[in-house]
Amino acid sequence: MRALVFDSQPGDRPRLHLVRGRAMPTPPHGEVRIRTVLAGICNTDIEILRGYHGFEGVLGHEFVGVVDQAEDRSLVGRRVVGEISASCRVCPTCRAGQYTHCPTRTTLGILNRDGVLADYFCLPVPNLHLVPDNVPDEAAAFTEPLAAACQVLEQVHLRPTDRVIVLGDGKLGLLIAQVVALSGCDLTAVGRHPEKLAILSDRGIATQLDGSDVRGGADVVVECTGQPAGYRRARELLRPRGTLVLKSTYHGLVEADLSRLVVDEIQVVGSRCGPFPPAIRLLSQGLVDVLPLIEAEYSLDEGMAACEHAQRRGTLKVLVRP
Amino acid sequence: MRALVFDSQPGDRPRLHLVRGRAMPTPPHGEVRIRTVLAGICNTDIEILRGYHGFEGVLGHEFVGVVDQAEDRSLVGRRVVGEISASCRVCPTCRAGQYTHCPTRTTLGILNRDGVLADYFCLPVPNLHLVPDNVPDEAAAFTEPLAAACQVLEQVHLRPTDRVIVLGDGKLGLLIAQVVALSGCDLTAVGRHPEKLAILSDRGIATQLDGSDVRGGADVVVECTGQPAGYRRARELLRPRGTLVLKSTYHGLVEADLSRLVVDEIQVVGSRCGPFPPAIRLLSQGLVDVLPLIEAEYSLDEGMAACEHAQRRGTLKVLVRP
Repeated sequence: MRALVFDSQPGDRPRLHLVRGRAMPTPPHGEVRIRTVLAGICNTDIEILRGYHGFEGVLGHEFVGVVDQAEDRSLVGRRVVGEISASCRVCPTCRAGQYTHCPTRTTLGILNRDGVLADYFCLPVPNLHLVPDNVPDEAAAFTEPLAAACQVLEQVHLRPTDRVIVLGDGKLGLLIAQVVALSGCDLTAVGRHPEKLAILSDRGIATQLDGSDVRGGADVVVECTGQPAGYRRARELLRPRGTLVLKSTYHGLVEADLSRLVVDEIQVVGSRCGPFPPAIRLLSQGLVDVLPLIEAEYSLDEGMAACEHAQRRGTLKVLVRP
Repeated sequence: MRALVFDSQPGDRPRLHLVRGRAMPTPPHGEVRIRTVLAGICNTDIEILRGYHGFEGVLGHEFVGVVDQAEDRSLVGRRVVGEISASCRVCPTCRAGQYTHCPTRTTLGILNRDGVLADYFCLPVPNLHLVPDNVPDEAAAFTEPLAAACQVLEQVHLRPTDRVIVLGDGKLGLLIAQVVALSGCDLTAVGRHPEKLAILSDRGIATQLDGSDVRGGADVVVECTGQPAGYRRARELLRPRGTLVLKSTYHGLVEADLSRLVVDEIQVVGSRCGPFPPAIRLLSQGLVDVLPLIEAEYSLDEGMAACEHAQRRGTLKVLVRP
């Protein structure tokens, strides 16, 4: 089969290349094999190409696919999306329900598990979620990042009377802003790209280009700029005793004034992967519109070009259809 | 009257000196004048002498005193402790009940308000709390830092089944550990000073000298080392999805790996001043023992020596009795 592989030859730095003769994966006990129908390229994939996490293997973790081989024959042929971390389900962390933090987890295309930018890949059965018929493939491919957006609401109680700023108008920011807006809160999406913010203002969400006229004192700021500088800007826009939700991951450290967090009694909430069922419900109910976020679609044969495209600054979602 | 004043002559850097002929303060409308009975020197006072906050004026904010002059005559002669921030009580922050974050607040000996290391000082009436007769002056002088310890429980739900580490065995750490222990949680106080940790182990609290054998994976870590390096150590000891309570304030920035906060979905809670009524109840019920934390007592005439003593590394509480 074909696969977009990020790996190294002895003595070389890892690089991305399209492999055509890779062996079909055989699902171990408890897992299924999935045929990739549509995959998305995420900023995390780009960060991996820059060395984040030190991953080597098949890239990619956003997908919609069809089950191709399974111990439970009733699963074969079903259209699925899937949670990306495969957990042991027996350790204390898993038994506490915190599967995504299992210390021995593997993660699709990120940690010790081949990803979805291939003709086929494997996932454990408990990771799978069926896709309702009324959700097209192009929308279903956004389930994973939309779940990460839902995680903000899972972790933080957003009150309808709260004033909230979503800082960053990248792919994740546009999803988070749409999910946050559903709470009825007083939301402003702040970014640097008028054409991206327009996707939100078209839906009636207040938007603003970042600058000195952005009104601070917000109750909650969600930092999803993907940049180290986003932390300081988010802090500036927050009121004392406010909540700062961090969604950005990047390579590198940030110089932070932690004493100011104490004086202003700020709560900082790191937020990563999220729950799939609410994301699927929002897509199925048409409450979030992901299709305007699609910038381009490539075949797997054009996978290298797809990754190059996704790395250009300001690019929205690039999809790959094997 | 006498006062320990930290201020500067034109062209000079600010310095601490004992002033003997300072004018008695006259309480403005809504405030009372208090005669200082006993005052404590806090790490924040030491940080102010190092330039923290840029404060100039009479130092000190921990006290027990007797009301000397008041519009409400029934207050005169009452023994009181007092919240240190004087707020406008009319702005949106105050109307939301968050008086300690009022943007125009003044703070005893810290921000635009003369402090308590003097014969007399002033505070607004709403800041005052009466001291029960069974609480001696030496214990009442700890009300303010004990309230700051209670603030940890005000902000974070400590479950009796949680494993908690209090990191730092300074004055505040010893108070926080005692308050946290009351929740019934599985607490270990981790520090660097056997003689200070002994104050806790004498009360049946588990203690440990910091080192590689400290068991990590805690549900909650309270960082009260007062040192920038405390943040990283606290992070190491925390489980994924754990809560890191920051109590330390110091001059300077910290290089923090914020992406790790996202991946591990850590919650960071900045925590500052706290509620006085529960602190007074704990003192009155004898549930917290503050007297072993007293290292020395000086007169106000010896105030300079008291501040020098308090600045020595590892010093516990230095009190000043005018």
